[in-house]
Order: sequence, then C-alpha cells, then structure tokens
Amino acid sequence: MDPTILEYLGSRLASRQWTGFLGALAQEFSDQLPETELRALMRRVGTRFARQSALSGCESLDDVQFAMSKIWMAQDWGWVTVEEQSDSLRISHHCSPLPATFGPQASVWMAAFLEGAYQQWFDQLGAGQNLGVSQASEPDAVGCVEFRLGR
Amino acid sequence: MDPTILEYLGSRLASRQWTGFLGALAQEFSDQLPETELRALMRRVGTRFARQSALSGCESLDDVQFAMSKIWMAQDWGWVTVEEQSDSLRISHHCSPLPATFGPQASVWMAAFLEGAYQQWFDQLGAGQNLGVSQASEPDAVGCVEFRLGR
Amino acid sequence: MDPTILEYLGSRLASRQWTGFLGALAQEFSDQLPETELRALMRRVGTRFARQSALSGCESLDDVQFAMSKIWMAQDWGWVTVEEQSDSLRISHHCSPLPATFGPQASVWMAAFLEGAYQQWFDQLGAGQNLGVSQASEPDAVGCVEFRLGR
Amino acid sequence: MDPTILEYLGSRLASRQWTGFLGALAQEFSDQLPETELRALMRRVGTRFARQSALSGCESLDDVQFAMSKIWMAQDWGWVTVEEQSDSLRISHHCSPLPATFGPQASVWMAAFLEGAYQQWFDQLGAGQNLGVSQASEPDAVGCVEFRLGR
Repeated sequence: MDPTILEYLGSRLASRQWTGFLGALAQEFSDQLPETELRALMRRVGTRFARQSALSGCESLDDVQFAMSKIWMAQDWGWVTVEEQSDSLRISHHCSPLPATFGPQASVWMAAFLEGAYQQWFDQLGAGQNLGVSQASEPDAVGCVEFRLGR
Repeated sequence: MDPTILEYLGSRLASRQWTGFLGALAQEFSDQLPETELRALMRRVGTRFARQSALSGCESLDDVQFAMSKIWMAQDWGWVTVEEQSDSLRISHHCSPLPATFGPQASVWMAAFLEGAYQQWFDQLGAGQNLGVSQASEPDAVGCVEFRLGR
Repeated sequence: MDPTILEYLGSRLASRQWTGFLGALAQEFSDQLPETELRALMRRVGTRFARQSALSGCESLDDVQFAMSKIWMAQDWGWVTVEEQSDSLRISHHCSPLPATFGPQASVWMAAFLEGAYQQWFDQLGAGQNLGVSQASEPDAVGCVEFRLGR
Repeated sequence: MDPTILEYLGSRLASRQWTGFLGALAQEFSDQLPETELRALMRRVGTRFARQSALSGCESLDDVQFAMSKIWMAQDWGWVTVEEQSDSLRISHHCSPLPATFGPQASVWMAAFLEGAYQQWFDQLGAGQNLGVSQASEPDAVGCVEFRLGR
C-alpha cells in the first residue's frame, strides 16, 4: 500500500478535537517526568478507566475479548484479540488512536494506559492476581500494539 | 429550551473518542494535586498549545479574534469573541468541549488550559507583558467561559 | 440563549462529511420534482431504512421509544419520545441533523424520511395497519420535528 | 496488512451519521433507475457541488491539485493527485468515503459524483471544453478511484 494512503488512514483514527491538547499535554509530561513515571501515571489512568467500564457476564475468553472490544469500539479505539499461548495470553490491541494523536515517541509510554486497563480487567476477572500485563511491542503506524499476560 | 435538548446539544460538543481517557486522567490528577497546581499545569499545557499554533498577520482586535477562532474552529473547540472594556479586555470563549468532556467539577480547573493559551497569544502580540489573563467565570453547560486581560 | 451559540450548537448536529454532497443532491431533486414527489421518495427511503433496522422485543410504548431511540442515537440522529394523546400518538423526534445538513427549505420535505421510518416501525409492530404517520410540524433550528400517528 | 485491519481502516473513512440513510437511498435509486441514469444523476450532483466550491487562484497543475484537495480534505473526503500523461491527465482520488458508505456495488455509480465534480472544475479552469472526465477504475477497499481527462 502507498505510504501516503497508509498515513492518511492512520491519521483518520484520531479525533481532531483533542490532538492539539493531548500533544501539548504529552510534551509537558515528557519534559517533567522520566519514562518510568510517565508509564506508571498512564497505567493508573488505564486502571481507573477500566474500573469505570467493568466487563460483565464473561464466561469464556471469547466473551472477554468481545466485552472489551465493545468498550473500545464504542469510543473509536479499535478492538482487541486475545490468544492463548503456551504459558501466557497474547493481547493484541488493533487500531488504537495513540500514534495518530501523540506521534511515535509519546505513543510508547502512552500505551501504558492500555496496559493498565487490561491489567484491571483481568484482575476483575480473577485472572490477574499472580499474573501481570506487560507491553510487548511499540504501537505501529496504525496503532496496533501487543501485550502479554503472564508471570 | 427543554433541558434534555440542551444537555444533548452540549454533549455533542465532545468527541466520544477521548471522553473516557480524559475523564480518568482528570480524576487521577484531582486525587494527586491541589487545585492551584492543577491550574498551573493546565496553564502550562495551554501555553505550549498556543506556542505551536502561533497567530499571524494580526493588525486589529478583529484580526486577533478571527485568527484565534480559526484555530479553535479547526478542532471543534468553538470560537472566541474579544471586547474592549474600560480598563481590560473581555475574552469570551464559546462552546468549548470542556464540560461535555470533564463534567462540571474538573472543567473549572481545566479551563486554565484556555487561560494559558490566551496569555501566550497576547504575549506573542506584545500585549501581555504587564497584563495577565485570568478566568472570570466557570464554564456553563454548553462550554462558554469568560476571561479578562488586564492588570 | 445567544442566537450565535444556538446556531453553532445546531450546526454541530451535522457531520461535515456529507453536508456538501447532500446539499447538492437536495437541490438537484428540488429542481426536478414537485414537493409531493420529493416527500414520497423520502418516505420510501425511510421505509427501507426502518426495514433494515427492525425493532426487537418491544412490549410497551416505553420499549418502542427506547428501541427507536437506540437506533437513532447510534448514528447521531438524536432521539424520539412518544406520548399517548386522546385519539393519536404524538411522535417527537429531537435533534435530528436535518436542518443543519439541508437548511430550512429542504428539511421540510426531507423530514418525510423520518415519517416513512416511523410508519414502517409502527406497521412492523402491528399498530400502523389502519393508522398513518403524518408530519405535524416543520423541523426547528435544532432539528426537532413532530409527527402524529392516527386515523 | 491483516484484512480485518484494512477493513476497519476503510470503515473509519465513513461518517456513521449518514451510512444508514445513504445506503437506503442508494438501494431505492438502484431499484428504480438503470445504471446509466444513476451515473447521469450523480454526475449532475457532482457538477452542482463543484460549482458551489469554485477553485480560486490556480496557475499551475500543482495549484489545481492543492485547491481541489483542500476542498476534499475539509470534509473528510480524502485528497486528489493529478498527473500529466502523454495525451491525458490522470486524476487519482484517494480515500473517498464511497465504498465505506455505499458498499462495493453502489460505489461504482456513486463515483460519477466525483466525475461530475472534476469535469466542472476543469471546465471552470477552461481546460474541459473539448475534454471529458471519465471514470477509469472502480473504487478500491479504501475508496481510491481513478479518472482520466482526455479527448
């Protein structure tokens, strides 16, 4: 695919209303805090977000995937797929508005917002107690980013 | 006007993509910082925002009003009118997405983002040196909020 | 409320993507067809629309109102309230994007789209057989328009 | 690229407000008119649209491309590139919302809207008098479609 087309499709993932505000906010944060603290802050924000959007009636991994995707889709944040692997779960978030809103640099630590949300949801489901969600990739041009739930 | 209609019209001012994220972010901040620091933070974010969206070719107050409104309109943040008063300028920002996004409580300090942006723009125009922009009202239900530029 | 603010709030009801296309389409139609045919065409389009978005599980008028509003809300077309009157039902559609998209003139006949949709839904519910939906007002500045279901 | 991701990116090109209405409208038209008349109708709508959005101050092909793209971008209709070829101009419209709104079938004749708009703009520039714009491809999954201006 032509890179200009891909870039345009990626840019259409972001709402134009908050791009200016959030870009300035991310720069202010980056100037004041080291990346570990930025990640910790965004993780806490993700935890709060997921607490306010609790999952309901999930009996299978398919249900979980569907319930979480429904929440993301309702606000144009893409969707998620969850796959069982030998000793962990692979959580693939697709088409988030992160890079289109924050650019490639801030997206790396902003993705900790998703990490915190997934941690909270798996905690709520009773699956996260001894297991942690960790970011396994940087967001790509169209906002896809992977996480891993495991020991 | 029927209050339900007004509420709906107000809610349509906010992009649904960031309402959840920004609501959680505002709560995290409110829990950690006193209001004076929240306001100072938002003012700095507004300053950065306005620095990245510099005004150009303004020779009259009408030009200034138009140039600032063009920036706000391009991202669905409403528009601004500026009126000369005996010893100050009255800056009226109309239809911002603040209350529809953050609710009435956080909107009060979030409006310091606008305060910081107006201060930076008037500084850039050479008018702010000995003059300060200060918030003169709380945002109403449809996001209108007033500021004053004066001594 | 300040008329400029009301106008802005009204304008925010319309998606900017189709305003140009639909405005040109409405003019082309107006030039070629008399208003009765325009209304008949729009009514047929509304019928098709409602057939593709069938209501489900409605046992009371409240259910009907909720099921129809859910469909409208999902596409930013406002919502509907239905009230029993002595010999008819009053169907009030609130905050449609019609005037913000088509302007006051074309909105009058474009509202037949809503008339057709309501007719089809009440037919589907078994209530429309001997009863017809007819438009009872012109859309106001924020897209509110009334219909009547009766003999 | 994963086809589900491409489909989602494509779907994000369409405003959800008019997808239901326009889908029903396109079906009503298809049932009543043969494709040549559908194309002629859409071409007339495109002509009207372009007449209302006249190009200004174009001295080079680059200016033309920029002026037309500005109009499309302002309403989230993608953008256009124009290339000189041996005996014609190749007009490539990128990322239109046509297939995401109308589906693959109706998009073919709906694209005559773009054909009519380009014809009108090149007529306005004095270049279309003996030259006609004709559609040279069907819209692809992300709304890209080609036209040719030539004899």
